[in-house]
Amino acid sequence: MADRHRAKRTPMAAVRVADIAAAVHGTWRGDPERLVTGVAALPEAGPDDLSYYADSRFQKELSNTTAGVIIIAPADASQIHDRALVVENPRSAFQHILALFVISRNDEIPTGGHPSASVSETATLDPTCSVGAHASVADGAAIGARTRIAAGARIGRNASIGVDCRIGENAVLLDGVEIGDRVTIGPGTVIGAPGFGFVENDGERTRMPHVGTVVIEDDVEVGANCTIDRAQLGATRIGRGTKIDALVHVGHGVDIGERVVITAQCGISGSVTIGDGVRMGGQSGIADHIDIAPGTLIAARAAVMKSIRQPGTTVAGSPARPITEQRRAEARLYHLDDLVKRIRRLENPASDTNDSP
Amino acid sequence: MADRHRAKRTPMAAVRVADIAAAVHGTWRGDPERLVTGVAALPEAGPDDLSYYADSRFQKELSNTTAGVIIIAPADASQIHDRALVVENPRSAFQHILALFVISRNDEIPTGGHPSASVSETATLDPTCSVGAHASVADGAAIGARTRIAAGARIGRNASIGVDCRIGENAVLLDGVEIGDRVTIGPGTVIGAPGFGFVENDGERTRMPHVGTVVIEDDVEVGANCTIDRAQLGATRIGRGTKIDALVHVGHGVDIGERVVITAQCGISGSVTIGDGVRMGGQSGIADHIDIAPGTLIAARAAVMKSIRQPGTTVAGSPARPITEQRRAEARLYHLDDLVKRIRRLENPASDTNDSP
Amino acid sequence: MADRHRAKRTPMAAVRVADIAAAVHGTWRGDPERLVTGVAALPEAGPDDLSYYADSRFQKELSNTTAGVIIIAPADASQIHDRALVVENPRSAFQHILALFVISRNDEIPTGGHPSASVSETATLDPTCSVGAHASVADGAAIGARTRIAAGARIGRNASIGVDCRIGENAVLLDGVEIGDRVTIGPGTVIGAPGFGFVENDGERTRMPHVGTVVIEDDVEVGANCTIDRAQLGATRIGRGTKIDALVHVGHGVDIGERVVITAQCGISGSVTIGDGVRMGGQSGIADHIDIAPGTLIAARAAVMKSIRQPGTTVAGSPARPITEQRRAEARLYHLDDLVKRIRRLENPASDTNDSP
Repeated sequence: MADRHRAKRTPMAAVRVADIAAAVHGTWRGDPERLVTGVAALPEAGPDDLSYYADSRFQKELSNTTAGVIIIAPADASQIHDRALVVENPRSAFQHILALFVISRNDEIPTGGHPSASVSETATLDPTCSVGAHASVADGAAIGARTRIAAGARIGRNASIGVDCRIGENAVLLDGVEIGDRVTIGPGTVIGAPGFGFVENDGERTRMPHVGTVVIEDDVEVGANCTIDRAQLGATRIGRGTKIDALVHVGHGVDIGERVVITAQCGISGSVTIGDGVRMGGQSGIADHIDIAPGTLIAARAAVMKSIRQPGTTVAGSPARPITEQRRAEARLYHLDDLVKRIRRLENPASDTNDSP
Repeated sequence: MADRHRAKRTPMAAVRVADIAAAVHGTWRGDPERLVTGVAALPEAGPDDLSYYADSRFQKELSNTTAGVIIIAPADASQIHDRALVVENPRSAFQHILALFVISRNDEIPTGGHPSASVSETATLDPTCSVGAHASVADGAAIGARTRIAAGARIGRNASIGVDCRIGENAVLLDGVEIGDRVTIGPGTVIGAPGFGFVENDGERTRMPHVGTVVIEDDVEVGANCTIDRAQLGATRIGRGTKIDALVHVGHGVDIGERVVITAQCGISGSVTIGDGVRMGGQSGIADHIDIAPGTLIAARAAVMKSIRQPGTTVAGSPARPITEQRRAEARLYHLDDLVKRIRRLENPASDTNDSP
Repeated sequence: MADRHRAKRTPMAAVRVADIAAAVHGTWRGDPERLVTGVAALPEAGPDDLSYYADSRFQKELSNTTAGVIIIAPADASQIHDRALVVENPRSAFQHILALFVISRNDEIPTGGHPSASVSETATLDPTCSVGAHASVADGAAIGARTRIAAGARIGRNASIGVDCRIGENAVLLDGVEIGDRVTIGPGTVIGAPGFGFVENDGERTRMPHVGTVVIEDDVEVGANCTIDRAQLGATRIGRGTKIDALVHVGHGVDIGERVVITAQCGISGSVTIGDGVRMGGQSGIADHIDIAPGTLIAARAAVMKSIRQPGTTVAGSPARPITEQRRAEARLYHLDDLVKRIRRLENPASDTNDSP
């Protein structure tokens, strides 16, 4: 098993701890010239590594770690005094350090189009954006400042993309899709394919044209290989600040609110409305035309078949029910043998020891 | 919330209502010169918009709509007399209008290959087909009349594609795959990857070569980011007129009949046979080597573990059962507390008010 | 139905049976000059076809087949004496024959880069590797001997790929990903996208940089349109000899052991550890931070919510439980009506015939 963890450390160029402390307004009482050369989680970090203590769930890992420098909150710092780099919010500080000292990609992306890219003459590209190898930008598309279109991505006609976006490798944005600012679209994700809508006559189905679009608001992130369909009419909407994991399907005409979190492999059927702040666990699903109240928590693998009207409800199961009801039913289900025994005893009060069903 | 719906209308070039009525053989008793400039669903349509009334599920929306022109059946037209564009089949008429007046893409696709496309000299392309930017067509492939290969799509060796097809952006058709006429393959979908088959010796697995192919018949539509594997021997088949949504997996050697409907994120294991007219709800699955009788309805999230022999059966649950049996079991499950109480009363006939478990 | 099977035979160039027998060290007592011109499963094979009898599950198919030549083990050969090509391990022999006589792709792949490929001057490519049309290889990437990068694939900066690998069409390997020898990555699969990790402040989420990588060991196969995320720190690992089907999601920091089998549409959440030899059935899932003991069998559609400590356990259901417990609970669930009747009889001993609920 030790060998399985050989790769669990991420090397970085050597940085002085004093420079790290200054960058996050932290306090470091050790040698300011000390260098760190890698980052790692507490169990894998060694004496030359920087790590962080997020919260008390990791108390055991903190006690055992050999990390050289640990980002930590003031209340916890005394446990590791000589290795503590003390900050108010360790998680945010660590996030900031990674962006400053470990991630350096952005610098390296050249602006303008790669020679192998195919960009329409009628597209409007900010001079600071970049278009990768073999990417294509169709007629009338618009791309904002500092936005990066990765290799092989397809930008459809009249699609518009705001500033500081990243459109992943081989992602597909179809005609007319509207993307806000600071949006990330994962590699291989398809935005704006027509929804699953047909007109049926005598068992034969022909396509209902889907002439709507997809609107993705600011600060949204969508993972890899997702599919977000265009609306039949109007728009499928993903609200500001919403985060979507990989392999998620969003059907046509869905309206997702702000700051929603959707975990991998969820499926959202057509015409669903999801309120602000909803969270969906992995592999959960919502049937079509359902409304989900703001703040609803949908447990992993839940299948929501009815609208949820009460904000802040937690549901689980398939079909989904309020989680306490669901957990109680599950608990009962796995104790049915007891019920059977109790019934049998009532039926045969004389023979308590009979265990046949 | 009002703002959430700002984009729920699709603008179009202004069209005279008389021209729309003529195109669908409808009756319009209002001003023939009246113009519509957009299409929208009943709740979002305004006075300059065209909408349609599909059936009585939308009676409330019809009563409240401000749509200027509404496609509607004769029996319902009196409710909105001065705004009614009367046709026999509103859904089909609306479908036709969208295709005529709103969708105009096809005109714009140039024929022939994009200069950045890579087309083998031994491929056979109809002069009216088109090949998009950075798409590639390998040796021996054949592409029919008016078929469009979108940007970045990959057409493998000796693959054949019929007439009037659309192969989506970055879709992958591997060697020897056979596609009929009027077939749509969604962006990012992979057709013809080898199935999940290995030969196991002492726990080590080596690949069983899958030398079969995939045959997709006429009028099939496959959504985005699906995977349809080639057969080990012979062919995986998708029957005529079948419609498949996004992120669906079809395993090797599966045989899907005609006019089947498969909703998003379904999974069909290897060697399954699905009869004509079957419908699968979202996120449902079928275990390997199972046969599904024609006309079976598989509810959303069902997991079919046994063959279904009786045509027209409806199943639900995991493992799937006839839906009435499944719904009854679910209802019982959520009332187990009642059973427990009844047993307790039988055990303690004297103390009816005791509620402890 | 007959017509549905027309394509269930795979033609091949004519080969003498004596040559086939020699290649697999088998015994053939018939005419050595006899030719076979196709391969097919037993039910579809005709007199000119080669087929194989894997095990007794196919006894009925063996009795009815019209196959001309059947690969078969010594103990079973007497049943079909004049058509038997006798070998010790029919499945392995058939695998070998397919590779020798039916698959001939590898010969045809040219070495070096396709003229439309985009290869960085700082990438290191073995002269025997090949790079397909419109594929791109970024700065610092390294590609080993005989490895084939298919059309449209993206190889990120400093990614490394061993010898004899196949990276599928439009697959994406992001920066720094490490791939061993003899690895197959399916078309459209994305390796190394950042995991689903954010820092939350007052309901707003900003990305936690994921600076780890993905390490894929030797002899791994990954299917089409999968997503395998990079670790936040360190590496997501896929152990030697593991096989992964299509549309599977592997979250950040997951550690998968050796010879694991993961069927289509499974989802593995972040920081999960999976022991050697585990098998996951289709559409199953594992919640985050869970440990799965070596040799665990996870049934199709199971949702594992708790760590499994006992090696060799089989679990099923959602949430997953030991399979005997789960199957017993399911059986009870579908017989609850019986329990209700028994309770009713106890409540009303006089009226045995009353069937109302």
